[in-house]
Amino acid sequence: MIKPRTPPGVMELLPRDQIAFQRMLDTIRRTFEGFGFLPIETPVFELSETLLTKSGGETERQVYFVQSTGALAKSSEGGQTDGLPELALRFDLTVPLARYVAEHEHDLAFPFRRYQMQRVYRGERAQRGRFREFYQCDIDVIGKDSLSPRYDAEVPAVISAVFAALDIGEFTIQLNHRKLLRGYFEGQGIDDARQMTVLREIDKLDKRGEDAVRATLTGEDFGLSDDVAERLLAFSRVRSTGHDDALAKLDALGAGTDLFEAGRNELRDLLNQLRALGVPESRYALNLSIARGLDYYTGMVYETVLDAHPQIGSICSGGRYDNLASHYTKSKLPGVGISIGLTRLFWQLREAGLIATADSSVDVLVTLLDDASLPDALALSQRLRGAGLNVETQLEPRKLAKQMQYADRAGIRFVVIRGEDEIAKGVVAVKDLRRGEQFEVTDDDLPRTLLVEREQWQAMR
Amino acid sequence: MIKPRTPPGVMELLPRDQIAFQRMLDTIRRTFEGFGFLPIETPVFELSETLLTKSGGETERQVYFVQSTGALAKSSEGGQTDGLPELALRFDLTVPLARYVAEHEHDLAFPFRRYQMQRVYRGERAQRGRFREFYQCDIDVIGKDSLSPRYDAEVPAVISAVFAALDIGEFTIQLNHRKLLRGYFEGQGIDDARQMTVLREIDKLDKRGEDAVRATLTGEDFGLSDDVAERLLAFSRVRSTGHDDALAKLDALGAGTDLFEAGRNELRDLLNQLRALGVPESRYALNLSIARGLDYYTGMVYETVLDAHPQIGSICSGGRYDNLASHYTKSKLPGVGISIGLTRLFWQLREAGLIATADSSVDVLVTLLDDASLPDALALSQRLRGAGLNVETQLEPRKLAKQMQYADRAGIRFVVIRGEDEIAKGVVAVKDLRRGEQFEVTDDDLPRTLLVEREQWQAMR
Repeated sequence: MIKPRTPPGVMELLPRDQIAFQRMLDTIRRTFEGFGFLPIETPVFELSETLLTKSGGETERQVYFVQSTGALAKSSEGGQTDGLPELALRFDLTVPLARYVAEHEHDLAFPFRRYQMQRVYRGERAQRGRFREFYQCDIDVIGKDSLSPRYDAEVPAVISAVFAALDIGEFTIQLNHRKLLRGYFEGQGIDDARQMTVLREIDKLDKRGEDAVRATLTGEDFGLSDDVAERLLAFSRVRSTGHDDALAKLDALGAGTDLFEAGRNELRDLLNQLRALGVPESRYALNLSIARGLDYYTGMVYETVLDAHPQIGSICSGGRYDNLASHYTKSKLPGVGISIGLTRLFWQLREAGLIATADSSVDVLVTLLDDASLPDALALSQRLRGAGLNVETQLEPRKLAKQMQYADRAGIRFVVIRGEDEIAKGVVAVKDLRRGEQFEVTDDDLPRTLLVEREQWQAMR
Repeated sequence: MIKPRTPPGVMELLPRDQIAFQRMLDTIRRTFEGFGFLPIETPVFELSETLLTKSGGETERQVYFVQSTGALAKSSEGGQTDGLPELALRFDLTVPLARYVAEHEHDLAFPFRRYQMQRVYRGERAQRGRFREFYQCDIDVIGKDSLSPRYDAEVPAVISAVFAALDIGEFTIQLNHRKLLRGYFEGQGIDDARQMTVLREIDKLDKRGEDAVRATLTGEDFGLSDDVAERLLAFSRVRSTGHDDALAKLDALGAGTDLFEAGRNELRDLLNQLRALGVPESRYALNLSIARGLDYYTGMVYETVLDAHPQIGSICSGGRYDNLASHYTKSKLPGVGISIGLTRLFWQLREAGLIATADSSVDVLVTLLDDASLPDALALSQRLRGAGLNVETQLEPRKLAKQMQYADRAGIRFVVIRGEDEIAKGVVAVKDLRRGEQFEVTDDDLPRTLLVEREQWQAMR
């Protein structure tokens, strides 16, 4: 006998939680599609040579390799083990997207708006809240040769719509621009080569605090003057509250280098587009400390925080990049995108008590009081299914109280009963476990009544 | 530069096909939920000791093992390579279900109706139409200690609803019962020990033909008399057409052993339940040659064929089994279930020209004629999204003809235009690319008009 257990570092859910999780996935997908993003899915594994184009990188040290039984047998017989196994599990959705776009370049229309919601794999150290398998929900818009900054404004509009629809509380999409940051550094006399290293330090403000970052910036490696370090920190403290304040704060930054002005102009345009898109101004703000560590980003950067739970950190991040797929194609493919790490988010929300136990996906339990009524119960169930309701039929007679108890525990809202009394009267009795009410309705009216109740309930929540 | 390519043996789709595939997944899921099945998802990998409980087996020779970078480095340094890697990719959804039910036994309500739609992995020989990664869409009902045969009748009702909803042509769910088969063999003097080997021969009738199977049955290994072999073949030829014919054919089989009668009674009850469930009688039939090779099954077995494409073989198979999880728990967990191999089915339907290019998931393209109208186009797009439409906004002005052409190629049905003329008249022009018509509608009426059109079109198809 083998003890049944999941491997460490995965999140496996019981059905009620799975239903809640699935509803979040559906909501995200519906919102992505609402903004015209098209679905793609890629295989869970890629060729290792495709996946490991860069050397080094934290993420690439966490790669899982995949070997067939045959290949494994060969290598353990002391056969060739030079080179890596042929396949590896994807560690994000960006590398597979780059490969996909490069491979199918001539079959895609650009700008290519795609969404992808699949699991990714990282050999993280086993630790509470760290996952080795987790869902990412990504959108990206990929241009060919160029991509208007206007696409950068759609991204926060999507984020806003997603988290409003998920209904997990107020949130703020924090905005910054790499050109604004680097342009500011440039204005302080920090040359091109050092801008990225300074930027990575600024990115650590959240974790290390101002004093530690100041010490590093003025220390031996960086050698910035106290004045310059202080100005960088003051710059990084800029936050806005509301649309007009954001524009005013941008204006107040004073004149800067061309790079700085380019970043500022793009930010201004983006703010105005967000207003035209009707994104509530409470949901976006400048935060000039946002940098995103990766070299990858070149323009807008986004992070999203739950206002009531800042300790969770960013729940949706991303930005603009210059070239998606330089490893796979000579075409220049600039893009902009964001990613939601849904497994971690779900886990954190549940830990914080913000995920209510979901109602069952089953709307109705059709009860069975005796064997003779089985054909009637089956036919009634099918009629309700035909109307679009999810129905479980009790197939073996049990005491009604037991059936009620089962429905209640399972989170099934409606219990439908047709005993002798009801048949004599030509009606069906319905127990509504959510409202705690029981009522009778004619056979003909039953499906419509339940559908209307279900809709009203959903609208109410 | 690395040539961008997918690993061999996977099916990766362009967005239009992905949309068609996603619609099939959605339809299947909706139908599974309609019958009260609850969702679960399991990790892509299981502990190897969990997955490889049995030794031998074709499937288990095709397992993919997973190793982290660290583990791989150790083994290639000449470190320990005794024993298998810790993790392996699931090769079906049944073993993960068994582990799941055993692991969460005390948190589940039995009978446990679950559905699961995820990808599975097999190191198949690379070959056209053979996949190393493919979707399975499974339902199972698991009982604790016992499970009424009544659950076996729900399964073909689900299959019927799924394939009717997928709208891929007429189909027949072929029914047989292991007890009927083995009872018949028993009546012919074939002892318990040989019944399974005879059954596996009968299962090959489709592939090998009657003559080859007859030769095997009467050959050295089996040593059945010509008479007995002939009776088995005659028995396996039984097919029914229609409900009453199925019952009559069952009656005509003559009296048999207790095992035989038990199988016949369960089949009769099942037929009557299918009628009560309103399953059209053209969609189910006895086929006494159906055996399903696996030892696993103990009662009802199902195979489903497309009437117009029998060469595709069974598109949905399954049956009743006695004990799901004997490797992981002492509890007896009988069940009944089926599986749809959706990747292969999709591939075959597409090869046979039965998958039409899907319309885009995008309903509306909001055009842009000049930069000044951008805020208006963005606001209009958001209004349409608010009404539940999927909308792509043209963010950079292009010639209208180009925008039309793009929408047409992308399969986007509605193109919305608001130029100077329209603004002056307070209307919006809509080009309906599906109907090839253009019409004008007031701003206020636009969302409702498009929604109604979309619904009517869907209903028509």
